[in-house]
Amino acid sequence: MKLLRYRAGKEVLPGLLDNSGIIRDLSGHVPDITGAVLNDAVLARLAALDPSELPQVEGKPDLAPCVGQCGKFLGIGLNYTDHAEEMGMALPEHPILFLKATSSITGPNDDVVLPRGSVATDWEVELGVVIGTAAKYVSEEEALEHVAGYCVVNDVSERDYQTKLTGQWTKGKSCDTFGPIGPWLVTRDEVPDPQKLWLACDVNGVRRQTGSTSRMVFTVAQIISHLSQLMTLHPGDVIATGTPPGVGMGAKPKPVYLKSGDVMQLEIEGLGVQTQNVRSDSR
Amino acid sequence: MKLLRYRAGKEVLPGLLDNSGIIRDLSGHVPDITGAVLNDAVLARLAALDPSELPQVEGKPDLAPCVGQCGKFLGIGLNYTDHAEEMGMALPEHPILFLKATSSITGPNDDVVLPRGSVATDWEVELGVVIGTAAKYVSEEEALEHVAGYCVVNDVSERDYQTKLTGQWTKGKSCDTFGPIGPWLVTRDEVPDPQKLWLACDVNGVRRQTGSTSRMVFTVAQIISHLSQLMTLHPGDVIATGTPPGVGMGAKPKPVYLKSGDVMQLEIEGLGVQTQNVRSDSR
Repeated sequence: MKLLRYRAGKEVLPGLLDNSGIIRDLSGHVPDITGAVLNDAVLARLAALDPSELPQVEGKPDLAPCVGQCGKFLGIGLNYTDHAEEMGMALPEHPILFLKATSSITGPNDDVVLPRGSVATDWEVELGVVIGTAAKYVSEEEALEHVAGYCVVNDVSERDYQTKLTGQWTKGKSCDTFGPIGPWLVTRDEVPDPQKLWLACDVNGVRRQTGSTSRMVFTVAQIISHLSQLMTLHPGDVIATGTPPGVGMGAKPKPVYLKSGDVMQLEIEGLGVQTQNVRSDSR
Repeated sequence: MKLLRYRAGKEVLPGLLDNSGIIRDLSGHVPDITGAVLNDAVLARLAALDPSELPQVEGKPDLAPCVGQCGKFLGIGLNYTDHAEEMGMALPEHPILFLKATSSITGPNDDVVLPRGSVATDWEVELGVVIGTAAKYVSEEEALEHVAGYCVVNDVSERDYQTKLTGQWTKGKSCDTFGPIGPWLVTRDEVPDPQKLWLACDVNGVRRQTGSTSRMVFTVAQIISHLSQLMTLHPGDVIATGTPPGVGMGAKPKPVYLKSGDVMQLEIEGLGVQTQNVRSDSR
């Protein structure tokens, strides 16, 4: 299933994308797509519905983040061997964890807003993992059973805030609008192997990032198992699992950063496309 | 006002502490103490109530975290001049920001649970700042107007996870139960100057930390202003503003860490006392 959330006036409603690409409304079956409905029992109930009998959503609705009420937005740093090479950094011994503020989360096609004075905002296409059932002290072998599904994440990052504002990456990762997630939450039955997906990011139509999740330093299962030794992963938590090569900071001969008017397009195999316009903060 | 949340069976209900130390129920007036009720208008409405006319809560109810549905739990590192000295570290140029997972939040007197295998869990008494109205790009001068109130925070920290698990402090700050907040959310009208509060932490009856918020490197107003340049601070967000000297990691001749059976007692002038039993994870 491809679950989604769409905007209808001031409301955000749950939906799914059917096989012909039509958005169907799920409000009659679940109040919203949040951790509360991501366990296997509810997902099985939704999977048993006949999409053609669900109300068709008219027009082209705005998509909201594909998961609501996300409790934790976890990010893994330097998790692709080829990206670590690009940055000239050693492979980490354990998954590098940072948190993105959940207030950075936006819809997959919402504008990305450059904070006032920002001169080093960068793109990062990443495989997002959405937790379905609580995970604490889980082994690698059982880890993927705790996943509800996967989505595209743009782990937008202000490099000066990340590296020059005194320690801890989170400053550059947590700005408002720096966490587009979606378009769909694709349930795990449609992603037989999360380590075999290609992913890509274009900026202004130029291919900047290409990669394969096969190049992850730590697999999705290893990441979940490791994090679950530290804290409980709760339903609706989202893990951004690191980015492949091609970020603006690594560009040669010098870094290339986002400016107002730029357009980012991100795609992961089977998980859909997100498109963001970049603009300055006009407040 | 001293706002609080207390447990009644499976429910968490809002309350306040009256001047004689009696807990009064607020359920008839607000559904819960969350960001949604921390703006000046609602706080003024609650302040206008006559506490003696509110239902008295029988017995000694368990206290829940003093704010519910916290969206962001922000921590400031190395923010006391005397603590930086103790750690032998230079004063930071900007407030050091890390995020604590909101899933670490617990009631002020709940058990603190050592994660499996943990050998370096430490205490940190801190002034907590609870945001009342959204703050983005605010100046130092206007920053405190965005504060609903203050509370005691124990920024419990696993030092090995924080420093030896590859980068980013958040790993040692986010474990389940590592964020006791409360007992009360003391509204800002009762705290005329947040830079003139003494704070203390005892472990097993031995005074370990003593300090004064006058020794902060960055004041509460400076921290709010700085963070608000990076991201919107939302109502209900909590900022732990750093710890004074006396943490276990800084003990001489060698570090002292928490073990099962230990008892922590934390107090900040005018903000109340919290007491936690420490135990191993028996799962």
